[in-house]
Amino acid sequence: MLNFALFGAGRIGKMHAQNLQAFAHSNLKYVYDVYAPAAQEVAKATGAKVAASVEDALSDPEVDAVLIATSTDTHVDLIIKAAKAGKAILCEKPIDLDTVTVNACMEEIKDCNVPIQIGFNRRFDPSHGAAAKAAHDGSVGKLEQVIISSRDPGMAPVEYLKSSGGIFRDMIIHDFDMARFILGEEVVEIQAFGSALVDEKITEIGDVDSVMINMKSQSGRLIHINGSRRATYGYDQRVEVFGSEGMVLSDNQTPTSVVRYNTDTTGVKDPLFNFFIDRYGAAYNLQLTAFIENVLAKRPVSPSFEDGRRAQILADAAQKSFDTGEKVSLSW
Amino acid sequence: MLNFALFGAGRIGKMHAQNLQAFAHSNLKYVYDVYAPAAQEVAKATGAKVAASVEDALSDPEVDAVLIATSTDTHVDLIIKAAKAGKAILCEKPIDLDTVTVNACMEEIKDCNVPIQIGFNRRFDPSHGAAAKAAHDGSVGKLEQVIISSRDPGMAPVEYLKSSGGIFRDMIIHDFDMARFILGEEVVEIQAFGSALVDEKITEIGDVDSVMINMKSQSGRLIHINGSRRATYGYDQRVEVFGSEGMVLSDNQTPTSVVRYNTDTTGVKDPLFNFFIDRYGAAYNLQLTAFIENVLAKRPVSPSFEDGRRAQILADAAQKSFDTGEKVSLSW
Amino acid sequence: MLNFALFGAGRIGKMHAQNLQAFAHSNLKYVYDVYAPAAQEVAKATGAKVAASVEDALSDPEVDAVLIATSTDTHVDLIIKAAKAGKAILCEKPIDLDTVTVNACMEEIKDCNVPIQIGFNRRFDPSHGAAAKAAHDGSVGKLEQVIISSRDPGMAPVEYLKSSGGIFRDMIIHDFDMARFILGEEVVEIQAFGSALVDEKITEIGDVDSVMINMKSQSGRLIHINGSRRATYGYDQRVEVFGSEGMVLSDNQTPTSVVRYNTDTTGVKDPLFNFFIDRYGAAYNLQLTAFIENVLAKRPVSPSFEDGRRAQILADAAQKSFDTGEKVSLSW
Amino acid sequence: MLNFALFGAGRIGKMHAQNLQAFAHSNLKYVYDVYAPAAQEVAKATGAKVAASVEDALSDPEVDAVLIATSTDTHVDLIIKAAKAGKAILCEKPIDLDTVTVNACMEEIKDCNVPIQIGFNRRFDPSHGAAAKAAHDGSVGKLEQVIISSRDPGMAPVEYLKSSGGIFRDMIIHDFDMARFILGEEVVEIQAFGSALVDEKITEIGDVDSVMINMKSQSGRLIHINGSRRATYGYDQRVEVFGSEGMVLSDNQTPTSVVRYNTDTTGVKDPLFNFFIDRYGAAYNLQLTAFIENVLAKRPVSPSFEDGRRAQILADAAQKSFDTGEKVSLSW
Repeated sequence: MLNFALFGAGRIGKMHAQNLQAFAHSNLKYVYDVYAPAAQEVAKATGAKVAASVEDALSDPEVDAVLIATSTDTHVDLIIKAAKAGKAILCEKPIDLDTVTVNACMEEIKDCNVPIQIGFNRRFDPSHGAAAKAAHDGSVGKLEQVIISSRDPGMAPVEYLKSSGGIFRDMIIHDFDMARFILGEEVVEIQAFGSALVDEKITEIGDVDSVMINMKSQSGRLIHINGSRRATYGYDQRVEVFGSEGMVLSDNQTPTSVVRYNTDTTGVKDPLFNFFIDRYGAAYNLQLTAFIENVLAKRPVSPSFEDGRRAQILADAAQKSFDTGEKVSLSW
Repeated sequence: MLNFALFGAGRIGKMHAQNLQAFAHSNLKYVYDVYAPAAQEVAKATGAKVAASVEDALSDPEVDAVLIATSTDTHVDLIIKAAKAGKAILCEKPIDLDTVTVNACMEEIKDCNVPIQIGFNRRFDPSHGAAAKAAHDGSVGKLEQVIISSRDPGMAPVEYLKSSGGIFRDMIIHDFDMARFILGEEVVEIQAFGSALVDEKITEIGDVDSVMINMKSQSGRLIHINGSRRATYGYDQRVEVFGSEGMVLSDNQTPTSVVRYNTDTTGVKDPLFNFFIDRYGAAYNLQLTAFIENVLAKRPVSPSFEDGRRAQILADAAQKSFDTGEKVSLSW
Repeated sequence: MLNFALFGAGRIGKMHAQNLQAFAHSNLKYVYDVYAPAAQEVAKATGAKVAASVEDALSDPEVDAVLIATSTDTHVDLIIKAAKAGKAILCEKPIDLDTVTVNACMEEIKDCNVPIQIGFNRRFDPSHGAAAKAAHDGSVGKLEQVIISSRDPGMAPVEYLKSSGGIFRDMIIHDFDMARFILGEEVVEIQAFGSALVDEKITEIGDVDSVMINMKSQSGRLIHINGSRRATYGYDQRVEVFGSEGMVLSDNQTPTSVVRYNTDTTGVKDPLFNFFIDRYGAAYNLQLTAFIENVLAKRPVSPSFEDGRRAQILADAAQKSFDTGEKVSLSW
Repeated sequence: MLNFALFGAGRIGKMHAQNLQAFAHSNLKYVYDVYAPAAQEVAKATGAKVAASVEDALSDPEVDAVLIATSTDTHVDLIIKAAKAGKAILCEKPIDLDTVTVNACMEEIKDCNVPIQIGFNRRFDPSHGAAAKAAHDGSVGKLEQVIISSRDPGMAPVEYLKSSGGIFRDMIIHDFDMARFILGEEVVEIQAFGSALVDEKITEIGDVDSVMINMKSQSGRLIHINGSRRATYGYDQRVEVFGSEGMVLSDNQTPTSVVRYNTDTTGVKDPLFNFFIDRYGAAYNLQLTAFIENVLAKRPVSPSFEDGRRAQILADAAQKSFDTGEKVSLSW
């Protein structure tokens, strides 16, 4: 049994709380949120205690693990505190918007020796996972190309996106991690185009809403990511893996298997899942299961802090390529 | 909050117990099984008490509802006891293998005035439900034809099927209910063919493993059901609704959205769900939710005891058509 | 090189004329139609001569083969004349609406010893053909069930259908042939339901527009055919072959591979082919090629006159089952 | 009626010859090939005359149009001769491997005033065409992203590719034209990655076999092309058009509509078309029809010589980006 303290009781925190309660081998002991009513709501629904403070929860020796689902700017502070308290950590992505801070964090906790897993939940999606497996186990032959389509159902208000760190660090970071996960090696060249096509106001905050990124890996493989802040037909999440013996596509998903035939159209399906928690519900579940099982079994957790840091480096490089208009090279 | 007693702690009972615990508005207070260790296991996992007997659980005035998931031959007895104790009832299908017994049960409880829902879970499947809705709301125009394909992943041992009541009453009864659900009217003519194609030994118990049934409804609509005890590619469950303005197909489902392209084949998907609880997981959940919500709100529950009885009458008629080689007419 | 005389220059005749001209090993020498302008049009487009009469064309020793695409009531007369003239014959289905006449024809030409192929073009459709092959070569294991969906895009005026012979003999005969083709054995029991759901006026001519037929074969296999005179989404033509090791579906076809994703719908495809010559264009072509190649190589042609006769017997039996409300048994 | 001289009687020339003969409004009068037996074969099959020389055919005033399907290095010479002879021209892509030569050709024929259409047949593919139409008519809303996947079934021997001009000019030029066709505006920035992943020997001739290209258009739209010289599952040809109100995908095509369900896999389709003439058969046909109809009606032909030149400029720019590792800007 793994006793958890949950930091952050917002939308994602609530989902994690439910999952923690449903599993046989985890127990949600504390929940903390700077906005107390949110913490109280989760506590009531799950039987957890509201912690008076982060320190309060961390000082309980019965707490084995923390789940960090707070706002990004608090992640590093909470990771350091939890690591120094000897707790296993599952932290939502990204570690921080600034890689300098990430590196400092890494330095600060290097002797703590606690398991840290970063919340790249998509690695646990059964469909994306099967595509990655096909790349790893040779069922597409020698891997040659990876194409990732990543389009959100709708764009958040520009005001909100101001503090997001930009589309590369906020949204596409998931896809950089997916690329690394599938490749099993590092990217060495990256080039990014971006445009304000969804909402021109995005340019006022120095950001874009539509991107296309090409990358080359250490062994010469080619990777493409396309992203948009808005797809009217739902949450468009595709991963294509192409190799010397075939292709595997992790395709989009609809809530039902209904197909309609009308006078003007055939094969009509429902809209795609429209909400990341619906689309990636199984992935969030499996992510948490893997963390719990690995921590209990004292096996390494994955994706690691270093995976989080490296995805960030790719996001930084993409941002730099977009800013300068030049291809960016990376060495590892 | 609805307090439940669960009768039957086998495979389906366990699933119901989990769902009852996960819902906010239900509580599993008692569990009973003739095989005590099964009840104890469910009790331990859910915090419910093991009831010493059925009567023990029914005598607790705090118990609002019972969920009957025992073997078929005990259903009627439990329904009568629970109804007389004034409990709301959700009973797995079929009510009984013998319609005479079903009718006697109906007579016996006619003054009890408790809500009774029969476990035709497929009505709650989001995809089949959307097909039914298309038949009801006119989105396929005027309904003309219904085609139901119903194939189990694998055949139980003939020994086990001995007490099943035969393929029409045991397996196809779900499809008879689905036909009635979609039609919104009654079937008046039925003709059934059957063969032993999967395992010849099935004939030794006077049964078949493969069937095709044609039916005509009161208004002349045509309905076809095909069934098999074994489909190697998984649990084949399709419903087709055809009308004057189009067709809606509730198609099969695979666990992932992975599509593979190889040297010899393209568009390759995973096998279908192979287990009814996986395929109809959402349906079981929604069935229970509907029961709980309707009972709490004092609304009628559906599908009703009468729905269970009528599906049985269709199964009887199909059996008779198969036995006699004649078309069977029904009046309602 | 095979020299043809074409009898009948209507819609189907024109298509055959084009195919005859496009093939390297066939030559259209004569065309004849009771409506001379139609024959002249084909002659002009292809370089063929307009025959003054059927006899005129048949008396030319250079004519090797005749293609009969006239109205059904003339088929038997033309078959007899052509057979007696020693010509190879490709005749559109059905041979005649009356099996008595078919049998008389058979008797009349029994010593002529000319190749006669009946125009069950769907046997040559690459997709249906692949489904049939899967039934024959064991790739679905031992064949158990066959399901044929056969829906025309639109219903001809009731006035026109008066002389059609009824839906079983006019339209479903194709599906009876398909069933025989896939089964590789004969049907021994047949039961048919029918309704007037598309246009009630069809009952005034003693016919129906919607049918469901169940059949059992000599070895106990089960076959279902559903048919409708009208499907708003196009020409619905599906064949499903189910066996002990899997299923093969010859699915519907659209003119393009375009897939649309909109705000309310995803996976949207074009309507199905709406015209039999578009849907079965390849089949008509391959049917003619097979005839030409087999006649030139002095190999048997297929489907044969006897295939045409047997499909008719099934159509008669279905009609009788519908008329009497009884199952009909057949012996061969 | 348009009288043609065909230059080049290889694989593509033969296909064009067949199409020219099948159309009602075109006539193949001459065929010429440096390899006389090839010309004789086409002449025999179609009834055309073998021209003694290019000049021979061009000097016949009855020849209205020429179809140039010779090797690329002869295109410009033939275009100039035919243009000066006043013939309408349909020339296979590319105009020439060297844009300097293309520009010189343009200068040389600028006063000839003959219709010149370049053989970008894919514009006429009904599925790609529908995707382009969706971009043009607003059915995907405001166009934002275009993604083109372009993978050949198999790679030609490196020896043969030596004179191909490189993957960008030889193969991807089709996709550059498709991008321009869909965009309806010009590309202003282009960046290309390339790798030798299929066959390392390709590097010996200074070429690659796998590419990823990102582009930005005048109005900021983003375009991606991925290409490979080899896809084991067939000829992979997809076009995705994404806009403010949806997405349209021109998906891959298989020869049949057969779908297989086996023990381990479901939804299995045939391999994709494996040969460009099979995949683009309809497109080649419609391309020729459009040329004939437009020339006869004295309407402009499209895609034009200038379209051919501009696709070439994009190919040059991609090559330069690959060679230098820098993004290339273009002004028009």
